[in-house]
Amino acid sequence: MLSEEKVKQALSQVMDPELNRSLVDLGMVKKIQIEGGKVKITLALTFAGCPLKEQIALEAKKAVLDLEGVEEVEIEIVEMTDEERRQIGVGSEKRGLAEGFNKIRHTLAVMSGKGGVGKSLISALLALAFKEEGQEVGILDADITGPSIPKIFGLQEKPSTGPLGIIPVTSRKGIKIMSINLLLPGEDIPVIWRGPLISAAIRQFWGDVFWGELDWLIIDLPPGTSDASLTVMQAIPISGIVLVSTPQDLAHMVVRKAAWMAWKMKVPILGLIENMSYFICPESGRAYEIFGPSRGKEMAAKLGVTFLGQLPINPKIASLCDAGQIENLPLNDYLPLARRLLEKVCPQTS
Amino acid sequence: MLSEEKVKQALSQVMDPELNRSLVDLGMVKKIQIEGGKVKITLALTFAGCPLKEQIALEAKKAVLDLEGVEEVEIEIVEMTDEERRQIGVGSEKRGLAEGFNKIRHTLAVMSGKGGVGKSLISALLALAFKEEGQEVGILDADITGPSIPKIFGLQEKPSTGPLGIIPVTSRKGIKIMSINLLLPGEDIPVIWRGPLISAAIRQFWGDVFWGELDWLIIDLPPGTSDASLTVMQAIPISGIVLVSTPQDLAHMVVRKAAWMAWKMKVPILGLIENMSYFICPESGRAYEIFGPSRGKEMAAKLGVTFLGQLPINPKIASLCDAGQIENLPLNDYLPLARRLLEKVCPQTS
Repeated sequence: MLSEEKVKQALSQVMDPELNRSLVDLGMVKKIQIEGGKVKITLALTFAGCPLKEQIALEAKKAVLDLEGVEEVEIEIVEMTDEERRQIGVGSEKRGLAEGFNKIRHTLAVMSGKGGVGKSLISALLALAFKEEGQEVGILDADITGPSIPKIFGLQEKPSTGPLGIIPVTSRKGIKIMSINLLLPGEDIPVIWRGPLISAAIRQFWGDVFWGELDWLIIDLPPGTSDASLTVMQAIPISGIVLVSTPQDLAHMVVRKAAWMAWKMKVPILGLIENMSYFICPESGRAYEIFGPSRGKEMAAKLGVTFLGQLPINPKIASLCDAGQIENLPLNDYLPLARRLLEKVCPQTS
Repeated sequence: MLSEEKVKQALSQVMDPELNRSLVDLGMVKKIQIEGGKVKITLALTFAGCPLKEQIALEAKKAVLDLEGVEEVEIEIVEMTDEERRQIGVGSEKRGLAEGFNKIRHTLAVMSGKGGVGKSLISALLALAFKEEGQEVGILDADITGPSIPKIFGLQEKPSTGPLGIIPVTSRKGIKIMSINLLLPGEDIPVIWRGPLISAAIRQFWGDVFWGELDWLIIDLPPGTSDASLTVMQAIPISGIVLVSTPQDLAHMVVRKAAWMAWKMKVPILGLIENMSYFICPESGRAYEIFGPSRGKEMAAKLGVTFLGQLPINPKIASLCDAGQIENLPLNDYLPLARRLLEKVCPQTS
C-alpha cells in the first residue's frame, strides 16, 4: 500500500546537490498528499530562484514515480523561511546590525564572467565619476580571493569598528571602500576558502559594514558565475548589473554566460561597457585593435542591452593602478559612462 | 566534575566553518582523554592539509578551556579516512573507473590567481609545444564557470562515452581535451553552481575521463584560490604548478597569493611565466610596455622560483583564438618554455 512514509523514504534518496544531504534530512519535504495513485508533494527549497530547482524537482518526481502504485506526481515548490534556512546553515543567517542603519540608494554590480577585462578598474572609475557628479559612493570588493580595489586606491589602513559595525576605509577623494585585503595582515596573503566562507564574507560586507548614506554602492564581482556572484544576486538587493567585456570573442562568450545568469536571477542589466578596445601608439598616433576589432555595440544589440561605451587601453592606467594613484587619472572618458548610468537608474536627476 | 560528555558538549558548539556543521555532528571528535585538569582531544579533519586546521584547533581548544576544571588542552589532528569523508559528503567519494586505467606521467597546473593574464592561452601553447616535442598531451579545463579551451581550439563536438568512462575530444594536432563547455548545449550557457558542484565536476574530469596514456596532463585553473584550486590540489596528484603573471604590480600581488597557496598545500612550483610583457608596434617596430615595465625576473627571484620566460602581446593570437585556430600559431616563443619545463620535471629526457 502506498503511504506517506513510503513516499518520504523515496525522497530520502534524493540529494540536494549543493548541500550534499537528502531533501528529507534538510527538512525540505513540507507536505505529502496521496489521492489514489496521485501524489502531490510540497518542497521548500532554500531560495525560490535556486538554479537547481528544476533538477531537484525532476529527481524527486522520478524517485516517487518508481514506487509501486504511483501514477502521477505533482511537485509544488515553495521557499524556505529565514529560520528554516538558518537551521540548515544556508543563507543570510541574520540581518547584520549595520544593515538597518544603512541607506543605500542604488547598488550596482560590475560583472564580466571572465577575469582580467578590467572590472575592478571600471568599478573604481565609475565610483570616481559618480563622486565627481556630486554623489556619495562606496565600493564593496566582492572579489575575496583576488581583491584589487585597495591596491589601486593605494589604501593600507585597517577598517575600524564602531558601535554599528565595521567602518569602511575612505579614499582620498572620499569613496568608502571595503575589501578583504584591508583585513589581511599582508596584501599577498591568500584567502584559501571554499564557497560558504566566500559567501559569508560578502554577506558581512553588506550587513555588518556601516556604509551610512550612499547614492551608489558599486560591487566589484570576481570572475565566474559561482558562489560570489550567486550570493551577491541572492543576498543583496541589486539595482542593476554593468557587464564588462573586451573585443575578444572569447570574452564575449563568457560575458554572455554572465548575462544569462543575470536573466535567470532576474537582476536587470543596465548595459555593457567594452574595455581595451584599442591602443593608441604614442609615436604613430595610430590606433591598434590589439585584441581584435571592436564588436561591443553589435554584441550589446544581440543581448538586447544598452551599449554604454568603449574605452581604450591606456598604459598610464597600469602605472597609476600600480602606484595606488588611480584617483589622479583624468575622468574624461568615464564621466559620460557615469552620466548614462545615472540617467538609466534615475532619469529625473540628469 | 569534568567528564567526557561535558567536553563533547563543549565541542558540539564548535563549527567547521566550511561545512557549517559542528565537529561532533561531523564525527570529527575521535578521542577524548582526561587526566586531572588535562584534556587531550584527537580531531579527524577532512584533509591533513586543510587550510583551516589551525583555526579549528584553536576554537576547539578555546571551547574546552572554558569548561570548569580544565587547565590544559592538547589537540592532536589526524586525517579522516575516505569512508569517513564520504559519510559527510566531502572529498572524492569514490575513485572513478577510468582513473585506474589512466597512465598520466606529469600533471601540470597552470595558475595565476588573477584572471585575464593568459592562463588558458599558455595552457594551450604549452600543450602544443610538448606535442611538438613528441609527447602525448591532454588538457583538463578546470575553469568550470569560464571555460575557454574548446573555443581557442575550435572544438564543438561532444565527448563520447566508452566502457571505461568519458572519452575526451581530440584536437586537430592530437591533444586530448575535456571541458565543461564540451558538455553544455551551447557555449554561452552559464554554469551557475556553488563550490561543491564545481569540485565534483573537476573530480569527474580526473577520475571518470579515460585519458589513456599521457606524458602531460595540463590543468587550466580558473582565477582565485577557492574551490577549484583547492580541489585540484587536494584531489589530483599534481607534479607541479606554473605561475602566470603580467608586468602589472596588481597581477604580481595576486600571483603571490597563488604562490603562497601552493606552498601551503605543499605542491611544488615549477616556475613563473610573464605574459603580455610588451607590444611591438607593427609600424615603428618599437616595443611598448603597455602594462608597465617587466618585473617578472625580479619577482620570480623574490619568490625563489625559476623564471621560465616572458611573452609579448601578439595581436595575431587574439584573432587566432577567436577563430579557434590556435594550432596555426608558430610555436617559436613557446618551445623554449616547454623544453625548460621538460628539463625540470625529467632531466634525463632533455
